[in-house]
Amino acid sequence: MEWEKIFASRASRMKASEIRELLKLLEQPDIISFAGGIPDAALFPAEEFSKAYAEVLTGPDAVPALQYSVSEGYKPLREWLVGEMGKLGIPCAPDNIFIVSGSQQGLDYIGKVLLSPKDTALVTWPTYMGALGAFNAYEPNYDKLDPMTNREPSTYAEKAAQGGGRVKFAYCVPEFSNPSGETIPRAGRENILNLAEALDIAVVEDAAYQQLRYSGETVKPILALDIERNGGDIDKTRTLYCGSFSKTLAPGLRLGYIVAAQDVIRKLVLVKQASDLHSSTVNQVVMGKVAHKIFDAQVEKIRKTYSHRRDRMLEAMTKYMPVGVEWTKPEGGMFVWVTLPKGFDGASLLAKAVRDHRIAFVPGKAFHADGTGENTIRLSFSCASDDAIETGISRLGTLIKSEMAG
Amino acid sequence: MEWEKIFASRASRMKASEIRELLKLLEQPDIISFAGGIPDAALFPAEEFSKAYAEVLTGPDAVPALQYSVSEGYKPLREWLVGEMGKLGIPCAPDNIFIVSGSQQGLDYIGKVLLSPKDTALVTWPTYMGALGAFNAYEPNYDKLDPMTNREPSTYAEKAAQGGGRVKFAYCVPEFSNPSGETIPRAGRENILNLAEALDIAVVEDAAYQQLRYSGETVKPILALDIERNGGDIDKTRTLYCGSFSKTLAPGLRLGYIVAAQDVIRKLVLVKQASDLHSSTVNQVVMGKVAHKIFDAQVEKIRKTYSHRRDRMLEAMTKYMPVGVEWTKPEGGMFVWVTLPKGFDGASLLAKAVRDHRIAFVPGKAFHADGTGENTIRLSFSCASDDAIETGISRLGTLIKSEMAG
Repeated sequence: MEWEKIFASRASRMKASEIRELLKLLEQPDIISFAGGIPDAALFPAEEFSKAYAEVLTGPDAVPALQYSVSEGYKPLREWLVGEMGKLGIPCAPDNIFIVSGSQQGLDYIGKVLLSPKDTALVTWPTYMGALGAFNAYEPNYDKLDPMTNREPSTYAEKAAQGGGRVKFAYCVPEFSNPSGETIPRAGRENILNLAEALDIAVVEDAAYQQLRYSGETVKPILALDIERNGGDIDKTRTLYCGSFSKTLAPGLRLGYIVAAQDVIRKLVLVKQASDLHSSTVNQVVMGKVAHKIFDAQVEKIRKTYSHRRDRMLEAMTKYMPVGVEWTKPEGGMFVWVTLPKGFDGASLLAKAVRDHRIAFVPGKAFHADGTGENTIRLSFSCASDDAIETGISRLGTLIKSEMAG
Repeated sequence: MEWEKIFASRASRMKASEIRELLKLLEQPDIISFAGGIPDAALFPAEEFSKAYAEVLTGPDAVPALQYSVSEGYKPLREWLVGEMGKLGIPCAPDNIFIVSGSQQGLDYIGKVLLSPKDTALVTWPTYMGALGAFNAYEPNYDKLDPMTNREPSTYAEKAAQGGGRVKFAYCVPEFSNPSGETIPRAGRENILNLAEALDIAVVEDAAYQQLRYSGETVKPILALDIERNGGDIDKTRTLYCGSFSKTLAPGLRLGYIVAAQDVIRKLVLVKQASDLHSSTVNQVVMGKVAHKIFDAQVEKIRKTYSHRRDRMLEAMTKYMPVGVEWTKPEGGMFVWVTLPKGFDGASLLAKAVRDHRIAFVPGKAFHADGTGENTIRLSFSCASDDAIETGISRLGTLIKSEMAG
């Protein structure tokens, strides 16, 4: 199931025949996989969820939990999120928060509201494939957002006009990005806001990994910086903060949220009304209960486990990678991003890795809006045991060395 | 909550100020409401759902139920649906079935795949407002589908071309339609297929009320007739059948399904991958369990209750409505559709009804793609007690008589 998700959900960028071939190879049980960008299911608080569903469905909440509900989302869950946002330096009200069916749906709705065909979305190189998939439905052009070395604002506007539209937003994953694992420092976040202000566009801050910091200093979310620039008033900001419960509590309930200015939220709520009415009521009620009870403890548990795995993977990389291979040192999240020497092709390396070395990863090309990045691969440590990391990275080192020698 | 849903979800057709005013009026506790197009929450099998969540989340299914899953939907649920479809004369395989987050999402995806701006969708007059809301996002034109008196196919194509696009599909609710309560007879369904074949377009069959027949003879779904025309092979058909669990088991889990040819399903699955990955895994697993166990008994229970309420409402209409008022006699579903004498305006009647007579209904104009239908209103009997029906319809009769006299 993991594999189908990884590849099939990238279908907009991969040929069906390629997917089928990969799936076939990857069904073999002895493969050590660093490919899945998914949380470790062993960490899901199944018992707490079980208790919460029972409590909700046998009590006075049963009727509203099973009935139709409002499109903006279950109010107690939004109220709980107000408290969490406050901790991140994002003062807001429930009307600034909108519950969606996973942050992927948030990205889709943002594309639907903001993008017309030939408009331009600014994205990092590489960027989250799921975001490209969501935006692609609205037929935009892409231009390269580089937080530390952005071009003159006018050059973005001119290029967008040449493409037949306007720049509509800048999208990024500022913390422990999927796929790069990198964090945008405060200066980069301010640069993004400067650019957005100059172009008068929105900023889409994908905060899917927000809670998963294992080391390094906390950096304020872009929305928090935007609020500071606007005298503490979130309703004057241009940033849409997309959060998720998938990486902390569980993805199977499909719940995420968008935090933004009220007039932005109202537009997004209208999109949801027309497209699926609202997210599952019972899941929202249950998520509210479980989050209220165990969120901090659950985040602590996940951080401890993933932090250990990150450390093991970085140690193994140092031990087994030959000179000429570079990789990121993430302060959190799930991913290490590897840049191989020029001439390497991640996709053909994957085929050899699976066939001859029984290991797997995701080739990096699919994360690039312009089809570059052939010599990059993404490794995920979120589901890997110590043994799998030691053995798998050792095998990867052997493969890369033999390719370099050949 | 009911009210907010009814009006807010129609926002694409109603002004925000109108909605706010109505909501204020309707919050008053003594209103007898025939407005809500929602199922009676007292009938939800809350205990069965509670048991199923507990079973799933404390057993071996807990991990997959909380994890990411495949976009086409949970296979055992699709397999159960194969059996149900078979009973309706729709032989199919799991690959012909796609799980969506409520049939509303199915309509949105169909619009996303089939409609470009200025294309034409054929819809009945009146039609389900939620369908218009979903399709409106893709900026189509509408033309009038009248199953019993359709125009020459070429006139539809010509009108669509004048509008700047092509006819893409015909949409209808063939059984106990929302809002009209009417059923399209077999001849009308064949006419729709004839028209669709002549224009080479899809048919979108919204079967949200399929299970709620209380009297009259069963008519085969359009998809079943389409399959018959194609030698029993669903993969050669042009009909997209949209089903729902919201009117039988519960809307709060947000689960529906589309049944169609495999190549159509594959396209829709790609849309879902990019837009929200998949519907809630745990809800799909639970719905599969509950449906397997109690579906037929639950449908029987609902039929008995709603059938009784329909009978009471039709009796009360006969008793209290003055000459000059007409209404439909539905064989199932939740709605009676009332046509008032020319000159009546449903929206201003509603204001008076709420203010002076403490009753509510939905004005019919919002169900018309061309903004006509001022003199129509929709009454729902699904949540009304015998007393509420007797008193409420009596008050409605008094109001209408006084308006006719004035």
